[in-house]
Amino acid sequence: MTDPSGPSAPAVLAGLTLEEKAALLSGGGTWETAAIDRAAIPPIVLTDGPHGLRRHDPEAAGFSFEESLPATCFPTAAALGSSWDVDLLEEVGRALGEESRAAGVAVLLGPGMNIKRSPLCGRNFEYLSEDPVVSGRLGAALVRGVQGTGVGASLKHFAANNQETDRMTVSAEVDERTLREIYLAGFERAVRDAGPWTVMAAYNRINGVHAAQDPWLLTRVLREEWGFDGLVVSDWGAVLDPVAAVAAGLDLEMPATNGVSAARLAEAVREGRLEESALDRAVLRLLKLIERTSPGTGPRTGPGTGPAEADFDRDHALARRAAAESAVLLKNEDAILPLDPRADLRVAVIGEFARTPRYQGAGSSRVKPTRIDAALDALTGAAGPALRLAFAAGFTLSGEEAPELLAEAVAAARDADIAVVFLGLPEGEESEGFDRAGIDLPEVQVRLLKEIALVNPRTVVVLANGGVVRTSGWERHARAVLECWLNGQAGGGAVADLLFGRVNPSGRLAETIPLRLEDNPSHLNFPGSEGTVVYGERLYVGYRYYDAKGIDVAYPFGHGLSYTDFAYSGLSAVVEGDGDETVVRLRLDLTNTGTVAGKEVVQVYVRDVACSVDRPVRELKAFAKVALGPGESAAVRFELDARDLSYYSTGLGRWVLEPGDFEIGVGASSRDLRLAATVTVDAPPPVRPLTLDSTLAEWLAHPEGGPLLRRTMTAGHASAMSDPAILRMVESTPLNRLITLSGGALASPELEDYLAR
Amino acid sequence: MTDPSGPSAPAVLAGLTLEEKAALLSGGGTWETAAIDRAAIPPIVLTDGPHGLRRHDPEAAGFSFEESLPATCFPTAAALGSSWDVDLLEEVGRALGEESRAAGVAVLLGPGMNIKRSPLCGRNFEYLSEDPVVSGRLGAALVRGVQGTGVGASLKHFAANNQETDRMTVSAEVDERTLREIYLAGFERAVRDAGPWTVMAAYNRINGVHAAQDPWLLTRVLREEWGFDGLVVSDWGAVLDPVAAVAAGLDLEMPATNGVSAARLAEAVREGRLEESALDRAVLRLLKLIERTSPGTGPRTGPGTGPAEADFDRDHALARRAAAESAVLLKNEDAILPLDPRADLRVAVIGEFARTPRYQGAGSSRVKPTRIDAALDALTGAAGPALRLAFAAGFTLSGEEAPELLAEAVAAARDADIAVVFLGLPEGEESEGFDRAGIDLPEVQVRLLKEIALVNPRTVVVLANGGVVRTSGWERHARAVLECWLNGQAGGGAVADLLFGRVNPSGRLAETIPLRLEDNPSHLNFPGSEGTVVYGERLYVGYRYYDAKGIDVAYPFGHGLSYTDFAYSGLSAVVEGDGDETVVRLRLDLTNTGTVAGKEVVQVYVRDVACSVDRPVRELKAFAKVALGPGESAAVRFELDARDLSYYSTGLGRWVLEPGDFEIGVGASSRDLRLAATVTVDAPPPVRPLTLDSTLAEWLAHPEGGPLLRRTMTAGHASAMSDPAILRMVESTPLNRLITLSGGALASPELEDYLAR
Repeated sequence: MTDPSGPSAPAVLAGLTLEEKAALLSGGGTWETAAIDRAAIPPIVLTDGPHGLRRHDPEAAGFSFEESLPATCFPTAAALGSSWDVDLLEEVGRALGEESRAAGVAVLLGPGMNIKRSPLCGRNFEYLSEDPVVSGRLGAALVRGVQGTGVGASLKHFAANNQETDRMTVSAEVDERTLREIYLAGFERAVRDAGPWTVMAAYNRINGVHAAQDPWLLTRVLREEWGFDGLVVSDWGAVLDPVAAVAAGLDLEMPATNGVSAARLAEAVREGRLEESALDRAVLRLLKLIERTSPGTGPRTGPGTGPAEADFDRDHALARRAAAESAVLLKNEDAILPLDPRADLRVAVIGEFARTPRYQGAGSSRVKPTRIDAALDALTGAAGPALRLAFAAGFTLSGEEAPELLAEAVAAARDADIAVVFLGLPEGEESEGFDRAGIDLPEVQVRLLKEIALVNPRTVVVLANGGVVRTSGWERHARAVLECWLNGQAGGGAVADLLFGRVNPSGRLAETIPLRLEDNPSHLNFPGSEGTVVYGERLYVGYRYYDAKGIDVAYPFGHGLSYTDFAYSGLSAVVEGDGDETVVRLRLDLTNTGTVAGKEVVQVYVRDVACSVDRPVRELKAFAKVALGPGESAAVRFELDARDLSYYSTGLGRWVLEPGDFEIGVGASSRDLRLAATVTVDAPPPVRPLTLDSTLAEWLAHPEGGPLLRRTMTAGHASAMSDPAILRMVESTPLNRLITLSGGALASPELEDYLAR
Repeated sequence: MTDPSGPSAPAVLAGLTLEEKAALLSGGGTWETAAIDRAAIPPIVLTDGPHGLRRHDPEAAGFSFEESLPATCFPTAAALGSSWDVDLLEEVGRALGEESRAAGVAVLLGPGMNIKRSPLCGRNFEYLSEDPVVSGRLGAALVRGVQGTGVGASLKHFAANNQETDRMTVSAEVDERTLREIYLAGFERAVRDAGPWTVMAAYNRINGVHAAQDPWLLTRVLREEWGFDGLVVSDWGAVLDPVAAVAAGLDLEMPATNGVSAARLAEAVREGRLEESALDRAVLRLLKLIERTSPGTGPRTGPGTGPAEADFDRDHALARRAAAESAVLLKNEDAILPLDPRADLRVAVIGEFARTPRYQGAGSSRVKPTRIDAALDALTGAAGPALRLAFAAGFTLSGEEAPELLAEAVAAARDADIAVVFLGLPEGEESEGFDRAGIDLPEVQVRLLKEIALVNPRTVVVLANGGVVRTSGWERHARAVLECWLNGQAGGGAVADLLFGRVNPSGRLAETIPLRLEDNPSHLNFPGSEGTVVYGERLYVGYRYYDAKGIDVAYPFGHGLSYTDFAYSGLSAVVEGDGDETVVRLRLDLTNTGTVAGKEVVQVYVRDVACSVDRPVRELKAFAKVALGPGESAAVRFELDARDLSYYSTGLGRWVLEPGDFEIGVGASSRDLRLAATVTVDAPPPVRPLTLDSTLAEWLAHPEGGPLLRRTMTAGHASAMSDPAILRMVESTPLNRLITLSGGALASPELEDYLAR
C-alpha cells in the first residue's frame, strides 16, 4: 500500500484473512494502527492534538507527556476560536500538518469541535466556540490546512462530548433538533466544507447509546446524510463492544487491545452476529486513509522519512501572530491602551504569569513546546529606553497566601504610572478528565488587583485562561482588560505586541462571558447525575439563551474592542430564488474611522420573524474579518442560503425553510448590531402528512385536508367551528377523538378514502 | 349491586358475558357509566368539577354549559391553593360532596392536582400550586371531604398534563426523578393520605407513551407502589386504543363510544391479544366504585333519589369564607388597608370587575352558580353611613378603548380619599383548551391604574385572575395589592370582608410571581413544538428554580401579608431514629405581636447540605396555618420523615436519604425564613452495585470493591492512583476501559470472582 504502484485496496482486502481484517480494526499500539507485513499494510501514526503535535518519542521508554518530541505549541482552540479568522486557522493547520509530517505522523487528532455548553467544561480550552457557525467554519479551515500537507485531520469528539465529568459513562439526553442545530452543525459544516479524513467518536452516550456504537450517528447522519467518506476512529478507550461499534460504522478502535477486540470481531463474524462485509467496509476505509496519507499524495510517513526538519522558527512566528489575532480587548476606558513603548513611562508588570506564562491546558493535548516566550521578556525587549519596567510576582502559582508578594506588588504599582497585571487560572483547574468547580479567578489574584487599583487607578489586566472567567467581581478595578486565553508558546510576544500597539487587537468573544455562573443556560443541568445529563436548555446555548431570556451579560458573544473604530453603512439585502434555492445577498460598507489600521469582525445574525416552532432571537449565520487602514473603506459581502434560514424539523425529518420575513442584523457583536434589514422569503409552507391523529387545527390548515373536512362535516359542526371561541377550545383535539366524541358524525367515506391514499 | 343484600362483585362478574364486561369499560353516555339491567348493574354519574358541581340537567335537550343545574361555585383551585388551609379544603370538599349527592352524582371530577409548570397554562386556575406538598396536602383534604359524603373524588389529570396546547398529542419529555419529585409527588401524597376512589388519566403522552395507556404509570407506580385501590377513568376522549388502555390498567373509558371500544376489547380478548383477566380486573374495580358510592355507604345515587335539597345558603357562606381565606395581600404600604367601614371617607370603587365579577375560569369546570355577589354591592352593604362609595367602570370587559370610562374613573378617583381599583384578566384569556399568550394585565387596565394613581396616590388594587399576572409593570402605582384570584360566586362579599378588615388576609402564594415571564423556568420549553415539550428545567420548577438561579422575583412562593404581625422564636429540631425510620421533630413558638387577630402560615423548608446528586436550594416540606388572637402565642410542631429528606434515585429505583447535615428553615415565605436549624441524619450511604462499567471512583468508594481493587492492583498502578492529579484525571473512567488500557494488568481472578457474585 505504501507503494503507489502496488495493488488496489479491494485487491489487498481480498487477500486478507478474517483474522487479519479483524486485527486491522484496533490499534497496533498506543498511537499507531496495526500492520500486516504479509500484505504490505504499514502502520500509521495518529496522535494529539488540536493546537500542536504531541508525538510520543518513539525512542522513549515510558509513556509520560514529558517524553514527547518538541513541537510548536500554537494557541489553544479557545484562543484560535476567538480570532474569527478563517485564513489564520488554515495557516495554523498547514503548520501543524507540516510538523506532523516531519514527525512521521499520518493523522493529527483535531480540531476539537464540541460546543462550549458550560463554562465549567474542563476541556473548553480545546474547543472553539459556543456557536456552531464559528466552530464549523474555523474547524473546517484547520482541517483544510492540515490536510493540504498530506496529513489527516480528525474532527473530535463526535458528538455531544460537552463535559469531562463521567465522560465515559454519561448519557447526554438531548433532542434531535438541538443535536442537529447546535451540537452536530459544526461537525456537519466541517465535513461538508473540508472533507476530513477521519472523525473521532466520543466517549459519552447520546440518549443512551454510546457515540462509538451509534449507527444513527456514525452511519446515517455522518455518512449517508453528510457524505463523509473517511474513517471513524474511536476516542482512546471509547469502545465498549467492538462488534456493536463496527456494526454501527466505527472503523478503527484505538488504542491496542492486545488482540481482544480482534478476536471478538472474528468470532462475531464466524457466529453470524456480524456481517463480514462490515469488517470489509472498515478495512477499506483504513486502507484508503493509509493511501491518502501515503507518499503518493505527499511526503512519506513513518519516523525519519518526512522532511528533514520542521521550520520551528517560522511556526513560532506564526504562533505569535495567531496569539495576537486571538486576544480579545474586553474593555479599554479612556483608551488607556495601547502603551507607547517609546514613552517616558514607568510600567509595573505584575503577576507571576508575566514571568511564567500559562499558555496551554492539561491532559492529552499538552504539547512539549520548542520554546516559550514570557510576556515580561517580550515587553522588556520591546520597550524603548525611556520606558522603565518593574516586575513583581504578586502571587504564587500554587495559589497560597503570599503577603510579602502582595506588598511588593502594591509597592511596585504605587511607584508606576501604569500597572499591567497578569491574572489567570491555575493550571490545575483546566484539564481533560475533569470539570471546573467555578468560573472565578483565584481569590488571591482578585485581592491583589483590588489593592493595586487602590494605589494606581491606571491599572490594566491581562488574562490567561482557557475557560471563561467571571469578570463582574473585579473588572471595575481595571481600566482595560485584555483576554489572551491560553495562547501558546509565543503568547508572551503577542501580549507585548498588543500592549504596545504593534498589533491592533482583533479577537472577538466566541463565547459569552456571563455576569454569574448561575446565569449559564446549563447551570442546573450540568454535569448531571446518576449517569445522565439533560440538555434541558435545548438549542438555547450561549447567547441564544441570554438573548431569549433577556439576561444581562458581562460581555456578549462577538464582543471585542479595537484601537480604532469602524463605521457600518449602506446595508442592502436582496433575495434570489425561493425554497431550497433561496439565496440572500448582503452588501454593506465598512469604514475604519480611526487613526490606526485594524481589523473588524463583521457579524451577520438572522431572526425568523414568525415560525411554527420556537426559534432563537438571533443566530449568527456569517462573519468576515476585514482589515482596513485608517480612513479606508471596503464593501463587505455575504451570501446566506436556505439552510442558514432553516430549522430542523423532527416531525418532517429535514431542514425546513418557512416562508415569510427574516430580520437580518449586521454588527460588531450579538448585542451591538449596527445595521438591519428585513427580507421576505418565498418557500412552500411545511406540510405535515395528515393522519387521524392530526389535530383539527392541522386538518383545517392543510391544503387538501382542510377543504375536504369542511366539505364533509355536518352543517351543525361547520357552524360550531365557525365560532372562534369553540374552535379555539377544540382545535388541538386530534380528529380521531373528535370523530369518537361526535358519535362518528365527523367521519365520512371521502375522509377514509383520502386517508387510505 | 344497588341492593346491599345483592350478590358480591365476584359473583356479579361471574355472571357477565365477555361482551357485557367489555361494554362496562366505556361510558354509557357523556356523564354516566354503562348499565347492565340484567345483572342489576346501574349507571353511575361522573361529572365536573373541582370547584363546583357541573351537572348537566338530565331534562335538558342540548349539551351546552348553560344547561347545567345550579350549584355553588366555590373559589377555583388557584384560590383554594392559596389558602394553605387543609381544614378549609376538607370543608369545601364536604360541601361539594353533599351537593353532588343531592344531584345524583357518584363521582365528582376533581381535584386538579397538576403542578403549575408555566404561568401560561390556560388551566392553571384549576390547579393548586407549583409545589407538590401544597398540592398533595390540599388535594388530599378535598378528597377526604368529598368522599366523606359517599361521593367519589377523582385526582386529575394523571399526569404531567401541564399545558393545554396540543394537550391530546403532546409528549411531555421528563426524566423520572423529576416526575417522581415534582409531577407525581402530589398525586402520590393524595393517594396515600386520602385514598381517592378514582384517578383520571390525562390526555397527553409522557416520554412518548399516552398517559391513559401507560402501564408504568397506571399500574406499577399508581397501584403497586402507592397502593391505589380505586378506578382509573380516562379524561373525556383520552383513550386512543382501548385495548392498550385496559392492558395498562385503565378501567373506564369516558365518554360513550357507541360500542366501538367495547367491540375492540371483546375482539382483542377473543383473538388472544388481551387477557380476559384484564377486563375482569377493570370490571371489578367499576363494581367496587358502584358499591362505594351506593346507598350501602351513604345516600342513594341517581337523579331524584338524593337528599331533598342541597343547602345552598350554607354553601354560599362557606364559599365566601373560603374566598376570604384564599386572597393574598401582596403589598400594603403604610397599612393603607384595611379601610374602616365606619369612617368618614370617600371611596372610589373603580373597575368593571367590581360590578361584574370574574369569579371562575372557562371550559369544562364552568359552574352555573346559585347566585353571584358583586364586590360593589357587598361594599355598599357593609359601609357605614359616613363612608361614601362612588363607582366608575373604568374599562369594558371586551378590552376595547373606552376614553369616556377612563375619564369618568379618573374624575371619581380625584374626588375620593382612596381609590380601590378592581383589575383582572378578561374571561377569554383563561380556559381549558388553550394556553395564555402572556402574563400581563390588559394594557387599558394598566393605563387606567396609572392615570388614577396620578390623581390619587392612595390607590389600592384588587386583582381577579386565575393564572399569575405580572405586577412589576404597575405595582409601584398601588399602595396595596390584594390578589383575590378567581374566587367563586361569593368572592364579592369576601373582598368586602377583607377590605374592611372584618377578615384578616391569610392567603399565601402557592405560586411565585416572577418579575418577567422570561424568568419562568419553563420559558424556552413551553409549550413545545412538533408534538413534544421538553421539561428541561427538570425539578427546578417555581421557587426551586428562582432560588437555585438566584433570580429576583416580584413576590416569592409562600408570600402573603396580614393586618397583624407574627414573631417566630425558639426553634428546636430533634432527630429520632435513622435511615428509613428517621423522624425530625420541630417545635417553635409563634406570637401574634399585633393588635388584631390573624392567621399565619408557618412554612418549613429543607436543604440537603451535601448530596451525591443536585438538589434544590430549599424545598417546602411542611406547613401549618395557625390562628392567633392579638398578643397570643402558640407552640407549633412539625414532624418530618425520611421521605421528606430524600431524593428519588433513578439509578437505584427508590427514594434515598443520604446521611449528613440538613438545614431546616422556618418562616413566612420561601424568602422570608425566620428561624434555622441544622440536623444531622444517620443513614447508610447509598451503594450502587458495582459492574465493570462502574468508574474507578465508584470502585474506590465502594465498601467492598475499593479494598479489593487496591489489594489486587499492581504496585505501579497503586502508586499512580496515590497521585491526586492522576487520580483526578482517570477516576471517571470505567474499570473495563482501565483494564483494557492497562493491557489487562488491572484484571485479576479475585475481581472476576467478586463480579460473578
